[in-house]
Amino acid sequence: MKVAIIMGSNSDWPILEPAEKTLKSFGVEVEVVVASAHRTPDLVQKFASTARDRGVEVIIAGAGAAAHLGGVVAAYTTLPVIGIPINATPLAGMDALLSFVQMPSGVPVATMAINGAKNAALFALQILATGHKELVEKLAADRVKMREEVAAKAATLKEVRGE
Amino acid sequence: MKVAIIMGSNSDWPILEPAEKTLKSFGVEVEVVVASAHRTPDLVQKFASTARDRGVEVIIAGAGAAAHLGGVVAAYTTLPVIGIPINATPLAGMDALLSFVQMPSGVPVATMAINGAKNAALFALQILATGHKELVEKLAADRVKMREEVAAKAATLKEVRGE
Amino acid sequence: MKVAIIMGSNSDWPILEPAEKTLKSFGVEVEVVVASAHRTPDLVQKFASTARDRGVEVIIAGAGAAAHLGGVVAAYTTLPVIGIPINATPLAGMDALLSFVQMPSGVPVATMAINGAKNAALFALQILATGHKELVEKLAADRVKMREEVAAKAATLKEVRGE
Amino acid sequence: MKVAIIMGSNSDWPILEPAEKTLKSFGVEVEVVVASAHRTPDLVQKFASTARDRGVEVIIAGAGAAAHLGGVVAAYTTLPVIGIPINATPLAGMDALLSFVQMPSGVPVATMAINGAKNAALFALQILATGHKELVEKLAADRVKMREEVAAKAATLKEVRGE
Amino acid sequence: MKVAIIMGSNSDWPILEPAEKTLKSFGVEVEVVVASAHRTPDLVQKFASTARDRGVEVIIAGAGAAAHLGGVVAAYTTLPVIGIPINATPLAGMDALLSFVQMPSGVPVATMAINGAKNAALFALQILATGHKELVEKLAADRVKMREEVAAKAATLKEVRGE
Amino acid sequence: MKVAIIMGSNSDWPILEPAEKTLKSFGVEVEVVVASAHRTPDLVQKFASTARDRGVEVIIAGAGAAAHLGGVVAAYTTLPVIGIPINATPLAGMDALLSFVQMPSGVPVATMAINGAKNAALFALQILATGHKELVEKLAADRVKMREEVAAKAATLKEVRGE
Amino acid sequence: MKVAIIMGSNSDWPILEPAEKTLKSFGVEVEVVVASAHRTPDLVQKFASTARDRGVEVIIAGAGAAAHLGGVVAAYTTLPVIGIPINATPLAGMDALLSFVQMPSGVPVATMAINGAKNAALFALQILATGHKELVEKLAADRVKMREEVAAKAATLKEVRGE
Amino acid sequence: MKVAIIMGSNSDWPILEPAEKTLKSFGVEVEVVVASAHRTPDLVQKFASTARDRGVEVIIAGAGAAAHLGGVVAAYTTLPVIGIPINATPLAGMDALLSFVQMPSGVPVATMAINGAKNAALFALQILATGHKELVEKLAADRVKMREEVAAKAATLKEVRGE
Repeated sequence: MKVAIIMGSNSDWPILEPAEKTLKSFGVEVEVVVASAHRTPDLVQKFASTARDRGVEVIIAGAGAAAHLGGVVAAYTTLPVIGIPINATPLAGMDALLSFVQMPSGVPVATMAINGAKNAALFALQILATGHKELVEKLAADRVKMREEVAAKAATLKEVRGE
Repeated sequence: MKVAIIMGSNSDWPILEPAEKTLKSFGVEVEVVVASAHRTPDLVQKFASTARDRGVEVIIAGAGAAAHLGGVVAAYTTLPVIGIPINATPLAGMDALLSFVQMPSGVPVATMAINGAKNAALFALQILATGHKELVEKLAADRVKMREEVAAKAATLKEVRGE
Repeated sequence: MKVAIIMGSNSDWPILEPAEKTLKSFGVEVEVVVASAHRTPDLVQKFASTARDRGVEVIIAGAGAAAHLGGVVAAYTTLPVIGIPINATPLAGMDALLSFVQMPSGVPVATMAINGAKNAALFALQILATGHKELVEKLAADRVKMREEVAAKAATLKEVRGE
Repeated sequence: MKVAIIMGSNSDWPILEPAEKTLKSFGVEVEVVVASAHRTPDLVQKFASTARDRGVEVIIAGAGAAAHLGGVVAAYTTLPVIGIPINATPLAGMDALLSFVQMPSGVPVATMAINGAKNAALFALQILATGHKELVEKLAADRVKMREEVAAKAATLKEVRGE
Repeated sequence: MKVAIIMGSNSDWPILEPAEKTLKSFGVEVEVVVASAHRTPDLVQKFASTARDRGVEVIIAGAGAAAHLGGVVAAYTTLPVIGIPINATPLAGMDALLSFVQMPSGVPVATMAINGAKNAALFALQILATGHKELVEKLAADRVKMREEVAAKAATLKEVRGE
Repeated sequence: MKVAIIMGSNSDWPILEPAEKTLKSFGVEVEVVVASAHRTPDLVQKFASTARDRGVEVIIAGAGAAAHLGGVVAAYTTLPVIGIPINATPLAGMDALLSFVQMPSGVPVATMAINGAKNAALFALQILATGHKELVEKLAADRVKMREEVAAKAATLKEVRGE
Repeated sequence: MKVAIIMGSNSDWPILEPAEKTLKSFGVEVEVVVASAHRTPDLVQKFASTARDRGVEVIIAGAGAAAHLGGVVAAYTTLPVIGIPINATPLAGMDALLSFVQMPSGVPVATMAINGAKNAALFALQILATGHKELVEKLAADRVKMREEVAAKAATLKEVRGE
Repeated sequence: MKVAIIMGSNSDWPILEPAEKTLKSFGVEVEVVVASAHRTPDLVQKFASTARDRGVEVIIAGAGAAAHLGGVVAAYTTLPVIGIPINATPLAGMDALLSFVQMPSGVPVATMAINGAKNAALFALQILATGHKELVEKLAADRVKMREEVAAKAATLKEVRGE
């Protein structure tokens, strides 16, 4: 199982790193690539058009500003592309969000929340689980863990409030 | 291969129908369900929590306004949930878009463009292709067909312009 | 008289605490609950559907981002649900605001200003006063107090300006 | 049981009429008033400051554009005020929505969706039910009716789709 | 010549102070009032309805959030009311801006930029100049001064750039 | 008493005509000018810089899209300039509104609601009343007329509702 | 002198046609191309990377929705690329506008108003005039013509108003 | 080869300086001017109408808030004008962006991203290259350099991630 994470600049990495961490915690191999839709379009094209042959099953693209990266990657592959709009300009990520999500008919990019790297990884795992049934149980276990975390937070609040 | 399409009201069907049409043209079985996150929450819960057992592999949820449907479905399943924000209020679909896409960490909903039913279906197919390899070629063929359509449009324009 | 305050995470508590404080200053019992619409939907369902039986008369739900909590709670009870959109993402609370306020016909959530916890409490008190007439006078007294505070602020400004 | 509906102009009535219809179907008396926060402020003040004495238990205020009506009414009463932002300018109701919902601390207005008259009525009924217990069952019955309507819609769609 | 500046809370004073300073530098008497449209509506009404009799010729109202103050003042006087939307919530002043500027037909409020206190004062002076001709020359002199300031800035930049 | 109305194109006239009508009903002379800030900047400059000498006391500028007209006029005169943002592009007048209202410090433009021509005229009259005391009573009479119109609307609604 | 106009679909042609018309009226050769950044990326790449060699001096790209076309073209050429955001989705062209204008550092796209095809052509002509001096006078003549058109509009309005 | 950079105040210089730096690195002469569209309109007019005669081939205008500078400059010259909307108010540059980009038909301003000074310079260079062929190669070399920078960033990330 392999997922690729692509970004236009290493300055996006602090936002995207939780995606890699989450994927690895599920035992998924992660390929991390820096390539820009505008400055190195050939690199992006090569990355995308050969991804399936390299064993990549899902691609995660993170970008801010005009954020064309997701669409350009999706143009060169039929692998599922998940987009993470990054808050990188004074417009608070709204520019990147619209640029990812408003893809025209024919070539979809599945868009996550602004800076939503962890959810991108979880969605990639849900996709992988379609073909890799062993992930189904792991995802269910993750939900149980989340429930426990909420319970822990509830307990902490009770303490804080002196109940 | 089975995909479920869920909506809160049959009034959303004209927007969502292209999703079913696209899925069927790829030979995918489609389950269509009307259930409201707010008016029939138990139905939604039952729909979502048993979907995997019914053989559903991907869920497409279409909703307008506050558009909680995608998030509520995703809360009860680890199947991939694809959201279609519907332009159904004076806010032109921006309310539904933000309500789908800004899901908090832990439970993702993959969001498409406003009214983007066809892309939801294509993304569902890309997901299915992870486990159903026969779809990979069909998706590639679809891209070829798209290219031919663009070429046809170009030819039409040439005619219109008298070239 | 009992009001419940529900939130998805204890990280929202600093925003919501003024609601509890205001309610208690009016002698209202407050139930504080951490439960997530997406991570612990069963908890939310149980919380909402049994709230009336526990003696809760009004529910206050605070949430940021996609902020489905108010709608999910309202789906399981006919108690009045007051929503507080929380500024928790780069979109400055606009995502949560639209997700709370744009509820579709049939299941209302009464929405307050972004981060408007104190007003949520005051509105809960105004609701309670419908059945608990002793609150009517207390609310009137609170308005008098507000007027005095404005007068005090005016006096302070006079001093600052050396009048 | 009495609810007042106030609006600045009779041109808003087509949007607000469903509120009256819903309230009356629950056996609630409705007082309908035309008075403008800016053109007849004295009327609004008199309306609001005497509403409780007239037996009004909840006030619904509908307004478009700058939409100060809800806030001005709320300034003169501690009755619960529910606001309906009306789509009446090129800004699609966003101006009225923000003007209603962003009330400063101290004087809340419970805001509904843009043009959300029916929900305003339902929320008024939920408030009334705090003191008028006979409404609790009626509200529960209304939810059952909604569920049946959703089921009917589902059946209609099945027919349309030839299932 | 007298201009009144009204605000809902002394916390707005740091934004509004430049208005007073500008007015005084032109020899205009300034009345500064703290009164809230929602918490002390009677004060605002009295302030506005007697302003002309007190010799006030222009009113400047500063407010953030729902920002009804300008409209409420304008409802009780036919003196020109100038509005300053204040950036006081997560919505960056856009809520206050729309609440000031979108006044319905009949009762105008002349709106300045967000936090635009100095321009409010200058506009008040331009209004006063209609009746007080001695201000015409002072305003012309102010424009000359502005031109000199721009020239000084240009000179400074030349220095910074080593020209 | 003379007010000038300036617009970039006669296509704006249907929006602006109510301003002229209102001004004339108060006995004010109106000068109507078509001149574009971008296509005929010299005309605008000449119009603005000589307006005071022509006896103009207030200028109303209507413009859509980038809407620089108000600012350019204000740059060449210290007469009060009132701006009417016109809804003339797909952005529903928001572009023109921000372009009028966000004037930088030093040169104000008093902005009205989008398409708010009648209020522009009323505000011009309020300005004129500073120097022309006979208008004060006329403005007061206009408010009385408004109150009567609201009363008439209320009566109409009563009839419609069969009260 | 040659300018290329590229669009993703012939459905955009009615918006873009004024660009061609304007360019031809100045004697500029126009190449019109239909190619989609997402459906026919290779076509776009080939179009852009060979444009300079074909004698193209400026490229105009029109696109709606996510509108990546301008950025993708600019990635493959150093010719000036002018973008026309097209109003093609419920978001009124704001999605396309941000996607064009918020290009990251390194690869600019010069953005025009939403649907601003004529201005795209005029800007292309201004660029061409840098190398083709004969256009300088033609552009000046066009400005004269515009001034005459404004004068004609002014005359028409005078007639309409019976002056 | 000469490019002019104009701004309303030297406070914009830190945002605009990268434009000058980029232009100079390509051997282009840069004229830097401080002049305000509203405070020194005559200066702006003189600057713009004589620019071509001074040998200027492209003008870059940076402005925040209402940001009329670009339009006013463009009104007085047919040289290409590039606009840089500056983030200078609580509205995060959205006001300036719309004011630059939504220019009406007839007088274009080519708009860059908010604070996009470097791209303004690069676009100016692309324009200059139309007449100054020696720049074509320099621009191509710049693209190569960008590609190397992306590669360097990719290498840095590999190191950071310990690959």
